[in-house]
Amino acid sequence: MIDVFQNKYPGRDYEITHINPEYTSVCPMTGLPDFGTIEVHYVPDKLCIELKSLKYYFLEYRNRGIFFETAVNQILDDLVAACKPRRMQVTGRFHTRGGIHSVVTAEYIAPKRTSRKAKR
Amino acid sequence: MIDVFQNKYPGRDYEITHINPEYTSVCPMTGLPDFGTIEVHYVPDKLCIELKSLKYYFLEYRNRGIFFETAVNQILDDLVAACKPRRMQVTGRFHTRGGIHSVVTAEYIAPKRTSRKAKR
Amino acid sequence: MIDVFQNKYPGRDYEITHINPEYTSVCPMTGLPDFGTIEVHYVPDKLCIELKSLKYYFLEYRNRGIFFETAVNQILDDLVAACKPRRMQVTGRFHTRGGIHSVVTAEYIAPKRTSRKAKR
Amino acid sequence: MIDVFQNKYPGRDYEITHINPEYTSVCPMTGLPDFGTIEVHYVPDKLCIELKSLKYYFLEYRNRGIFFETAVNQILDDLVAACKPRRMQVTGRFHTRGGIHSVVTAEYIAPKRTSRKAKR
Amino acid sequence: MIDVFQNKYPGRDYEITHINPEYTSVCPMTGLPDFGTIEVHYVPDKLCIELKSLKYYFLEYRNRGIFFETAVNQILDDLVAACKPRRMQVTGRFHTRGGIHSVVTAEYIAPKRTSRKAKR
Amino acid sequence: MIDVFQNKYPGRDYEITHINPEYTSVCPMTGLPDFGTIEVHYVPDKLCIELKSLKYYFLEYRNRGIFFETAVNQILDDLVAACKPRRMQVTGRFHTRGGIHSVVTAEYIAPKRTSRKAKR
Amino acid sequence: MIDVFQNKYPGRDYEITHINPEYTSVCPMTGLPDFGTIEVHYVPDKLCIELKSLKYYFLEYRNRGIFFETAVNQILDDLVAACKPRRMQVTGRFHTRGGIHSVVTAEYIAPKRTSRKAKR
Amino acid sequence: MIDVFQNKYPGRDYEITHINPEYTSVCPMTGLPDFGTIEVHYVPDKLCIELKSLKYYFLEYRNRGIFFETAVNQILDDLVAACKPRRMQVTGRFHTRGGIHSVVTAEYIAPKRTSRKAKR
Amino acid sequence: MIDVFQNKYPGRDYEITHINPEYTSVCPMTGLPDFGTIEVHYVPDKLCIELKSLKYYFLEYRNRGIFFETAVNQILDDLVAACKPRRMQVTGRFHTRGGIHSVVTAEYIAPKRTSRKAKR
Amino acid sequence: MIDVFQNKYPGRDYEITHINPEYTSVCPMTGLPDFGTIEVHYVPDKLCIELKSLKYYFLEYRNRGIFFETAVNQILDDLVAACKPRRMQVTGRFHTRGGIHSVVTAEYIAPKRTSRKAKR
Repeated sequence: MIDVFQNKYPGRDYEITHINPEYTSVCPMTGLPDFGTIEVHYVPDKLCIELKSLKYYFLEYRNRGIFFETAVNQILDDLVAACKPRRMQVTGRFHTRGGIHSVVTAEYIAPKRTSRKAKR
Repeated sequence: MIDVFQNKYPGRDYEITHINPEYTSVCPMTGLPDFGTIEVHYVPDKLCIELKSLKYYFLEYRNRGIFFETAVNQILDDLVAACKPRRMQVTGRFHTRGGIHSVVTAEYIAPKRTSRKAKR
Repeated sequence: MIDVFQNKYPGRDYEITHINPEYTSVCPMTGLPDFGTIEVHYVPDKLCIELKSLKYYFLEYRNRGIFFETAVNQILDDLVAACKPRRMQVTGRFHTRGGIHSVVTAEYIAPKRTSRKAKR
Repeated sequence: MIDVFQNKYPGRDYEITHINPEYTSVCPMTGLPDFGTIEVHYVPDKLCIELKSLKYYFLEYRNRGIFFETAVNQILDDLVAACKPRRMQVTGRFHTRGGIHSVVTAEYIAPKRTSRKAKR
Repeated sequence: MIDVFQNKYPGRDYEITHINPEYTSVCPMTGLPDFGTIEVHYVPDKLCIELKSLKYYFLEYRNRGIFFETAVNQILDDLVAACKPRRMQVTGRFHTRGGIHSVVTAEYIAPKRTSRKAKR
Repeated sequence: MIDVFQNKYPGRDYEITHINPEYTSVCPMTGLPDFGTIEVHYVPDKLCIELKSLKYYFLEYRNRGIFFETAVNQILDDLVAACKPRRMQVTGRFHTRGGIHSVVTAEYIAPKRTSRKAKR
Repeated sequence: MIDVFQNKYPGRDYEITHINPEYTSVCPMTGLPDFGTIEVHYVPDKLCIELKSLKYYFLEYRNRGIFFETAVNQILDDLVAACKPRRMQVTGRFHTRGGIHSVVTAEYIAPKRTSRKAKR
Repeated sequence: MIDVFQNKYPGRDYEITHINPEYTSVCPMTGLPDFGTIEVHYVPDKLCIELKSLKYYFLEYRNRGIFFETAVNQILDDLVAACKPRRMQVTGRFHTRGGIHSVVTAEYIAPKRTSRKAKR
Repeated sequence: MIDVFQNKYPGRDYEITHINPEYTSVCPMTGLPDFGTIEVHYVPDKLCIELKSLKYYFLEYRNRGIFFETAVNQILDDLVAACKPRRMQVTGRFHTRGGIHSVVTAEYIAPKRTSRKAKR
Repeated sequence: MIDVFQNKYPGRDYEITHINPEYTSVCPMTGLPDFGTIEVHYVPDKLCIELKSLKYYFLEYRNRGIFFETAVNQILDDLVAACKPRRMQVTGRFHTRGGIHSVVTAEYIAPKRTSRKAKR
């Protein structure tokens, strides 16, 4: 579902960020839509996430009933499975509901670091 | 009073933030209302705070006479008792009174950390 | 001069901030008024600073001739003497004089830490 | 292609930043232009980057088909080759494409540090 | 050239900042004026920089042909020589030239620290 | 579909604004979602728009394929039909598509003004 | 309920604005609190509104169930009755409810203008 | 070159805005790129500008040598010829060159107004 | 008290603005200091206000007990008397007191306009 | 001194703005430098101001002793003489001196309007 491409600079730890301010899903309690911004930060290993497929991946949440906490952890699990990064952090900043604004952040760090710094 | 639900990702340390810009209570000295924004940041263990009950919890301060320092520490104690988190920080940013703007921040860290990072 | 009250949560290290954007004193060189914002951040031990007396304390600078560097250090010394905190930082951000904007920050840390974290 | 000049203060580690908000290249997939801001931060060793030649260097990307990830790493490699710095970081902040805003950051640290702090 | 006065609180490490948004000099290549903001942050030892003489010191750059990198390092050297601080950092943020915005930061740390914290 | 209630102050021309930053629909060309903020400004005559039904009205656009220009004019027509205001303006501010940000504004003014100013 | 004092400059049309960001009332539908900022702009005739009594007047809304549209018009009526101004405008900017942010503005203009410009 | 589509609401004067922050052309004096934001505001008559073709129209300026004043007037002439609007305004806000930031605004108003307000 | 100098361009109506963010006086009710920003806008006739004497004029309010409404009108009267302008507006924007922020604006227009536009 | 070029669109009234945030001159009282931003807005008749010569024109103020009011009027007179516009406005926004921030705005309108709207 999420396309990847070969990282051309695997010898260097570097960070890629994708920010999607157009995330929307459905509240499983009320059936009303939720809105938010999803930030993905990661250090690629051998694979990078292809941007267009990432966009289509987020579209699948549009009609899905899901809690804020679950959505952020699920996105992290799916993206880690797709590109097997050295490190990844996913943050969801959600619109005010009932007067309260919520943020959820989850992080993954690969069990065996394989990173090597270029030219060190 | 504060409802909780099962954390579906207890194997991962992740942070949840709830920000309530509509906090109001009553000054115990003057009887006049105080206003502020309460920020709750926490790392859940087995339980997460249910958002709607959190909203109702804050409403109970509306007619209560309480000092800034007490309110922040009391909220921290109540929320820790309700969800037994791995870590929690509560910050209150209060409106100017007598020309002075006040902020109070208190933190709790669970005595025995039980957190395990996913896939490490 | 500065009133204090008993800290109800001495078992927990927590931070209190008071920001006064209405500080004014007199330049000892020119006799002209100076303006600035004074920020007080502290971790209380057994005593907290009473807000109204803090406001009156700052009023005493209104007609006093004092340099920026002296004012910040003097405020720190006076507030430390009054409430004997575990840690305190005072920052003064002063209006532009002669096209130059100045900031002075001084910090105090109690010689023997007596802090204990709640429930650890 | 990138001119350099002698660093007059090689005995001191200091940081130079150049920010170019007028970066543009061409998307290799669609042939449409991409836009972004490139930030270069570095600690010079014996050579500094000449500003005018840096400007002309960025102009060469104007009609080049290149991915975000490749552009940032290529700029880092070219600038490191030109001035052999003690440390360099390149960040590209790219305009929204498909509703998603991307940032890429890569860093180089010289294998053998030769820096000496002045007067220490 | 730069006047100093006795630091009344030598027993305490504290930071003084002076920010001058009205720095201007002349580009040695083109003869055209450059503009920028110079920030000076320092921890005084026995001497503080007198503000009015600092203002006059900056005026001497108005008709001087000097590069960004040289100006920041020269200001650092001159101010260190004048007040012999425990630590000093000088940052120059210069206006866009050729579409590129530049920042230069240099730091000095005294070889033998003589600082003592008050009351520790 | 849009509920209304009696205007309690028909003797006075006054303005009501409702701003919905959570508008989303579907592009009829690409099938991809569009996002935007809809602003409704109106002077009520005998009827006011009920806020909750307005929210549900906007939800019906979530899965509808519609152009920006049509959406704004359609919302204006529907709301005018529902509450028969003295004047109404609808503005849609849409997210960037293809690098271009679009705004559409349409206005209705009742053919026969029936407004009377209170107490004049 | 609202105290007034003699306008010392009745010969001149001038504008007074009071902005209260601490307005709160109760939603008559849900019983939940509403929050907002009330702005009062007026040109006094013979009487000015006393600031402290205005503050106490707003406090009476704290536990009152009232709609946004009614509150703004009621405040306008009450303040006009109290100080009989030449002109008055009241605006309420209310916090987001159900994802929608509302603003209500009502204006009063005295039937017989009695204003005279000074020295004309 | 610029595609148009039928205006579905010709009976109503309404305004459409398209803002392109990714305009770039070449300076005819120096051959160096210029950058800017082009804003198009218009009231359609029988035709609306198709957004995708507008995007491709702007791309033709990428390698064209043209002055700021000419570009804005040329864009206005081309868009007026394409969609024959009731009114159109084009503004170009260009990046700083030689320390000076320039803005050019030109407007067209159709010689014979044919607009009719809906339902008046 | 307020010095003036000859307007060198009396044949042209032009506007001069002086903004003083360092206004302070004393509340006649409580004896506590008030703070605010005073803006003076005027079209000079034969005389302009000398800036240094304006600064000293504002200093006289520092220890004076005066209401917001009176201060703005008094400043207008004093400055009009001093420079006999064609038009003058004085606005005071005062710090929050009791949770309410106040603004007062008064305007003077000379009874017989003597202005002539240059070269018309 | 100020170069001009032929206006290619004399049949249309359109506005050109040039903003120079790097204006500096010398205070004739103190000999100290003044700083500010000069904004020039004009509707050209047959001639436009050449941007590079405008930049050099402003450089001549760098070492000139001149008051704020005189500078703005002098710039207006010089630019009107150079390009004989249909209308021109010059605004100077000057840095704070003695705690007071000043703005001066002067406008010129050609005695005989020769403007013709395109295609009217």
